Parts: sequence; C-alpha cells; structure tokens
Amino acid sequence: MAVIRPLCVIAGLGNAAGTGAAAARVFSKAGYSVALIARGQTTLNALSQEMNHSGGDAAPFCMSAYTPANFSETFSSIRSRFPASRYSFRAALFNVGYAVWKPFLEVTPEEIQESLDTNVAAACAFSRESILKFKENTINVENPNRGTLIFTGATASTRGNTMTSAFSIAKFGVRGLSQSLAKEFGKDDIHVAHAIIDGQIATGAALERNGGKPMVGLSPESIAQSYLYLAKQEKSAWTWELDLRPAHEKW
Amino acid sequence: MAVIRPLCVIAGLGNAAGTGAAAARVFSKAGYSVALIARGQTTLNALSQEMNHSGGDAAPFCMSAYTPANFSETFSSIRSRFPASRYSFRAALFNVGYAVWKPFLEVTPEEIQESLDTNVAAACAFSRESILKFKENTINVENPNRGTLIFTGATASTRGNTMTSAFSIAKFGVRGLSQSLAKEFGKDDIHVAHAIIDGQIATGAALERNGGKPMVGLSPESIAQSYLYLAKQEKSAWTWELDLRPAHEKW
Amino acid sequence: MAVIRPLCVIAGLGNAAGTGAAAARVFSKAGYSVALIARGQTTLNALSQEMNHSGGDAAPFCMSAYTPANFSETFSSIRSRFPASRYSFRAALFNVGYAVWKPFLEVTPEEIQESLDTNVAAACAFSRESILKFKENTINVENPNRGTLIFTGATASTRGNTMTSAFSIAKFGVRGLSQSLAKEFGKDDIHVAHAIIDGQIATGAALERNGGKPMVGLSPESIAQSYLYLAKQEKSAWTWELDLRPAHEKW
Amino acid sequence: MAVIRPLCVIAGLGNAAGTGAAAARVFSKAGYSVALIARGQTTLNALSQEMNHSGGDAAPFCMSAYTPANFSETFSSIRSRFPASRYSFRAALFNVGYAVWKPFLEVTPEEIQESLDTNVAAACAFSRESILKFKENTINVENPNRGTLIFTGATASTRGNTMTSAFSIAKFGVRGLSQSLAKEFGKDDIHVAHAIIDGQIATGAALERNGGKPMVGLSPESIAQSYLYLAKQEKSAWTWELDLRPAHEKW
Repeated sequence: MAVIRPLCVIAGLGNAAGTGAAAARVFSKAGYSVALIARGQTTLNALSQEMNHSGGDAAPFCMSAYTPANFSETFSSIRSRFPASRYSFRAALFNVGYAVWKPFLEVTPEEIQESLDTNVAAACAFSRESILKFKENTINVENPNRGTLIFTGATASTRGNTMTSAFSIAKFGVRGLSQSLAKEFGKDDIHVAHAIIDGQIATGAALERNGGKPMVGLSPESIAQSYLYLAKQEKSAWTWELDLRPAHEKW
Repeated sequence: MAVIRPLCVIAGLGNAAGTGAAAARVFSKAGYSVALIARGQTTLNALSQEMNHSGGDAAPFCMSAYTPANFSETFSSIRSRFPASRYSFRAALFNVGYAVWKPFLEVTPEEIQESLDTNVAAACAFSRESILKFKENTINVENPNRGTLIFTGATASTRGNTMTSAFSIAKFGVRGLSQSLAKEFGKDDIHVAHAIIDGQIATGAALERNGGKPMVGLSPESIAQSYLYLAKQEKSAWTWELDLRPAHEKW
Repeated sequence: MAVIRPLCVIAGLGNAAGTGAAAARVFSKAGYSVALIARGQTTLNALSQEMNHSGGDAAPFCMSAYTPANFSETFSSIRSRFPASRYSFRAALFNVGYAVWKPFLEVTPEEIQESLDTNVAAACAFSRESILKFKENTINVENPNRGTLIFTGATASTRGNTMTSAFSIAKFGVRGLSQSLAKEFGKDDIHVAHAIIDGQIATGAALERNGGKPMVGLSPESIAQSYLYLAKQEKSAWTWELDLRPAHEKW
Repeated sequence: MAVIRPLCVIAGLGNAAGTGAAAARVFSKAGYSVALIARGQTTLNALSQEMNHSGGDAAPFCMSAYTPANFSETFSSIRSRFPASRYSFRAALFNVGYAVWKPFLEVTPEEIQESLDTNVAAACAFSRESILKFKENTINVENPNRGTLIFTGATASTRGNTMTSAFSIAKFGVRGLSQSLAKEFGKDDIHVAHAIIDGQIATGAALERNGGKPMVGLSPESIAQSYLYLAKQEKSAWTWELDLRPAHEKW
C-alpha cells in the first residue's frame, strides 16, 4: 500500500522572503508536500524550484485574483497535481494580507473593497476549499486530526488604530471568521487557529528599510515554527489563538 | 440669528419596529431633527410621517443599495433638505445589519459579499460622510463636540460562533472600524462609539415568533436611550464601547 | 404611607476631589440619600457636611480598614442611620483604589498584600453587603431593579504594563468579580457594572502637578454622570462594562 | 568545563496526575533537571522518585504554605541542591490552583483570602524568585533566553461566571500579573507566558468521576507539550498567551 504524504497548502507568499515562504520551507522539512498559491508567477516558480532542488516536493499555483471561483479551480488543480491516492490535505495556511496604512478620509472606496475582498472574502473562499478537502480525510490513531487551518493575523486583528481603519475592518473580520470556524469544525476534528503577529516582520525588505542595522522584528522562520507546532498539537489541547512578538517589543 | 438645530442621521430601520426607529423617536424627542435612511420606501415614509405628526422634524431618504456613491448622494440630499443655515449634523447612527445565520459550508459567496458590502463597506461609506459633515461644525462652549457616530453591534461583534461565520466576519470588521475611528477622530472632537447588543431585541416580529408570551429581550427604546446618552457624554469622559443585554439573559 | 428614599452607598473618597465625591454629589442631586464610606474622618465629615448644607441627605461612615468584618458592621450602621421604613439601598459604588506604580522587583510582599486586600478582598466584602441589602428590596413597576452595584476600574483592569504588576493583579481581579456578579445576580434584578477609567482623572492634585496648565484628563463629574446613567438603565438593556476616556487621549 | 544543565522549577502538583506532574515528566525528557514544589510531601516524594528511577534528575521541595518567605527559602534550597556551577534556572511553571466553585453569597471571607493568597500572592512570590534566578543567567548564542516563566490559567482567567466569582478574582489577577511581567521583562530576555486551559482536564480523578466513560477533556501531557514549546520559542517570536481546549469542546 502506498504511503500517503501530508499536503500543506499555503496562500500568500509576498516576495518569498516572509512568513508564507518560511512556512513552506518549515512544513517541507517536516515532511509535508507543499502547494504554493500566490498572484506573482515569478516568485512562485522560484520558490517552488528552490524547494524542489533542496529535496522538497512543492508545486506552484498562480491565481490572477483571490476570488471564490479561482480558489475552487485552484484546489482542483492542486488535487490533480497531488492525487488522493498519494496525498492528503492536512494543513492550510491563509497568509494573504493586503495592508492599507493611511488616514481614514484618504482611503478610497476601491481600497476598502480591495481590503475586504483580498483579506476577508478570499479567506472565506480559501477556508471553504480547505475544509472541504479536510473532510475527505478519515481519522485514525496515526492521523487523529482531519486537518489544520491557520490564519496569519496582525496587531490590527485585535486593535484598531489611527492609521489602520481600512486594514482593521478586514483583519478583525478574519479573526471573527477563524473563531467561528474553530467552534464549528472542532467537532469534525478540524483544527482552526489564528496567530496574531504583533510586530514588524524582519524580512529582507524591512531589514533594507532599516539600513542594514539590526531591527526588533519577528523572524519569519520562527513564526513558521509556531504554525508547525499548531498543526502538530494533539487534539485534546488545541489552540485557537496565540500572539507572537519579539522579546524586546514594547506593547 | 437663527437657532441651529442639531440633526441626527440614522441608517437602517428594518421594519420600523426596532432599534433604528426607536432611536429616531428618542433623538427626536430630545430635540434633534432626524434624517432617516433605509432601503424600503414604504416603511421610511410611514415612520417619517408618524414622527412629523407627533411634533418631530424628520425626513426620509431612500437608498436602493448602501453603496459609497449612494451614501455620498444621500448626504447631499440631506444637506439640501436640512441646510447649514439652520441645521448642524451632530449625531449619526449606523444601524444597518445584514445577518446570516447558517453553517459555514452552506454560505454562498454571494452572501459573504452581501455581508461585507452591507455591513462593512456601507459602514465605511456612512462613516466617511458623517465625519466629513461633523468636521464642518465649529466647537464652542455650548457645542463642545463636533458630532457623535454610533454603531449598532451584536454578540457576533466579539464572539464568532458555529452559525455566525458569515455574520461575524462583518460585525468584527465594523468593531475594528469603530475603534480605529474613535482613536483617529477623538482629537478632532468627534466621538465614535460601538454598542454591543448582546441578546435578542424584543421587536414586534420577535414577540410574534414568541407567540405573544413575554420574552427575554432588549427593548429598542432602551437601546436608543443608551445612544442618546452616548451622544450627550461630556468630552472628557467618552465611551468607545458598551454592552447591553437583558437583566435575565444568560451569558 | 411614607415615601421611601433611594440610598446610595459609596466607598472610597480619596481627598474628596475625585470620582467618589463627584458621584456622591451627582447621586444626591438625583434624589438619592448618600452613605459615605472612607478611611479618613476629616475628609468624610467635610464632604458630608457640604452635601447636607447644599440640601442633600448624607452621612459619613469611617472605617479604619476595609476588612470584611468592618464592612459588615458599617452596613449595619448605615441601616440604623437610614432605616428600612424610610430608605431602600438602591445603588452602591466601590471606588476604593490602592494603586502601586513601580517595577515588579521593587514591590514588597506587603504592598502585594495591601493591593489584594484593599482592592479585591474589600470589593468582595462591599459587594456582599450591598447585594444582601439589595435583596431586601421588592421590585415593582416603579422600581423594577433591586439595585445597581458599580465598580471603578482603570486602564490596569484590562492591560497589564511594565509598572503596574502589583496594581493589575488587583484591578484585573475586580473586573473578574464584577463580571461574575453581573452574571450571577442579573436574574435577581441586581445590576452589576464595571467602568474602565482609561486615563488620568483631572482632580485638584493632578491639575496641581500639571502646574495649572490645562490637562487631558477625565472630569470626575462626568465619570459620575456615567454611573448615574448606569443606575438608571432600564433592565432589558443593562451594561456590564463601559470605558471612559478623554476625547483627546491617545490609546 | 562542566556542562550546565537547564533547571525547571514547577510549583503545584495536585495529586501528581495532572498538569504539573505531566510538565515535570515532559521537561525532564527534554533534558531539564526538575525542582518540584508542592504542599503534599507524599505525592512530592513519589513523583520525584518515579522521575529519578526513569532516568530523570528531580528533587522534591515541600512547602507548608505558599508564602513569600517560604518561596524565598525554597528557592535557596533549590539552588543548594542544584548549584550554579552545574545548573541554570531556565524554566519555571506556576501551576498552583485553589479553585472555589460556589454561589457568591456562600463564599466565606476565608475562602476569598485563601484564593487570593494561594493563587495570586503566591504567583507573585514565585515570579519574583524565578525572575531573580533567571537574571543570573548570561545569554549567548546557545542560550538566547534568560528563562521562561509560565502560568497555568483557566476559563475563569478571562470569563467570570455565576459560580466562579471567588476563583475569577484570582485567575483574572494572575493573568494581569503575567501580562505585566511579559511586558516588563521581555527586554531582559525573560519570557513570560500564560496558558488558558479552557476545559476540564482529563486526570485520573475526573475520569473516575466520569465512571470510566470516555470524556471530553484535556490531556495533561498535551498541555505540558505546549509549555515545552513555549519554553523553546525563539525570542523574536514569543507568545504571551495561548488558549488550549479539546477539539470537541463547546465554547
């Protein structure tokens, strides 16, 4: 009988230097095959190749826009590339983030729409596809969980602030989604978790902006380790929400 | 010199038996002129007439859909009907609520879109127009506040639950909006508040569903009194958020 | 038949320039007789006399320490001075606050004990006596509530911070008490509320420290008005918790 | 040069079937020496022996009461048994819990005192001793954290309820302490975390009460694994708070 490999789907990769890419690498090292979803084909292909060259099993899935129809189609494509005979969906990370940082009266209706579409409606669509795939899994002693769905949250998920109105409407919303889903699907052995990234992430871009000087920021790799921990939690003690911030952060 | 009357704008009236209509009556009795916004012309006209017959000063503004463009146009119409020479915008209540109550996998993309549009994007548009109008006000000893913007929240604003995923994404979002705006516009003497209605509202419809038997539910009039209290708070001690629930409610 | 006057008990008066004294005056003007509890006899007598001279009905009750036994005795004394034939306990405000503001390693065990005793154990004892007295009340159309018990909270009630460990252990605790009591005694028509004073209070002392310059601070009178509003809320729409802060406060 | 072993101090072991004992075993297997603190000598000795027989390095420290003076003395004894030349304090778990579960008016002043003493004042004393010991540690590439201090929280840490007033005053308080300490000592590379155990723990006693039938409850071992994860977090991404509950729990 063929061994079934666990598959992790990750949506949202930015410039491949942040949380999404780090999670791809961490889950890959932990034995997962990885389906990568992003809107930028170049970054997507580069990361996928890099992972495959270093012994991973990854594949890129480019989406022009994070619409419900596109997510449905993409998950079908993922299933074709990672067939049920050899792979089971076991983890899904929604790491898409469209951040707006400006005074409220300068925010346009289009930015509000984009914030709600890309952050919230997309999170709903991604959740739907992930949960439907998790539900196909059987549970047994070796695989007591059907799957783990993780959302990357932010400071703006729990605190609105003067420059974050258009971002908070969306990040609060995703938090509400994650709590609802955690309560609704726990009984189906599907684990839904929400991580509040409460600080700046020390990616290449942020480091550059900081002029090469050391910065107080979260390591994407460390965030990713927390996601792997969430995916591995034994099901009598599941976490819905945790916060993550640098030791030296003021909060 | 003409006396300037305070004007209260209320969006969302349901069947005119709930919170929005109660707020219209309460603010009217407290001396406000009232601009009523809803999507149902019949209800709107009936409430407006009732208020005017009982000595109030109200006018109906029907919107086919709660879009940013429509809100902009409607606030212009309100200004035409209640000109700056005699009226100043002093209170605004966003009481629109599109509730979805079903298992997540039964929620359609259209319902998610409608929930985000009607609850969140509309709240942003309404807030924008209200704040722009409040900013026109000068402050002085008699009118130390430029205006008060109030949002009607719900249990689903702070707790996601098994049947409320599609509602919570929106109500959490509006809460994030309200907190952001409270922080951003406090310095401009604009008060933004969020009321969590944590229980069923005892409207005609709910009473009917209860077969005439007494029910544990919030009185719309009492909710409205809390809104008036918020609008009257002295500005050294403003409330962003309060919860409201029946004495006998379990929570 | 004699008219029964409502009685408000207030514990914690500081230097009579703050929230407790303001609440005494506000409830007095609203028709309540007032029982004043504090540890400083001089302040207590002065405030009581001032209130009686301006048409109020107040009496001072000095306690050497806020112990359970002392509270029990004091409430008996209050009952003797304000007999059931003419007075009913209708409101109670726990405004006692022992604040510690220092680095954790500099806090002594005695300060921790004092913080827990004065803030928490005293709140429990005061609550017990108040609720027992409220339970003696009958409810009817004119008096639908048995009584209202209010706690003065602080920023440290919901956010621990670098200098507030020894204060937060207590203020968090009182918040937990107030929520528990709100849930337990709502069914008995007893209203329990918690107000988060999220800023500096503009008392004489704080104004003096500010060198006479205008300061961003809460007016004790405005805080007191919110307490009166809480005591007057109709029981289908009771608030457990509200926050209060100056319009211009950063938070 | 001698290898320095990491030492974990655990206070609160109950009947050695719960979270404290599980944490002792988990940290022991992860390479920590373990100092066990409890009030029951028999349980303490039994657990210590069991751990040593299975290859661990544990020692029992009995305290007659959890007073500041006793904690100070006990940490000195721990240091004598585990000298600085060979051991460094790297983790500390405050797992003491005195639960009161009864209607508020049945709670005695003694129970309130006991709840505050055992849960809160003891937590402060334990924190003080732990932090002082952590501060002795130097940090370097291999040991970037000075130490991790973990508190076992409960549902009553964030939600008061009808039967939990006397427990919530304490558990809310400890949460406030943990947040304050997390903020104050993060800059010193000391990690403070708070775990909300939001459900019944499936210990021997609870299983027995359930008549041998399978129960929805948290496994102490799984809770302990989360504590080990917290202690191992890389310091750019530290968690202050996480919740833990069974997959099938309603919440």
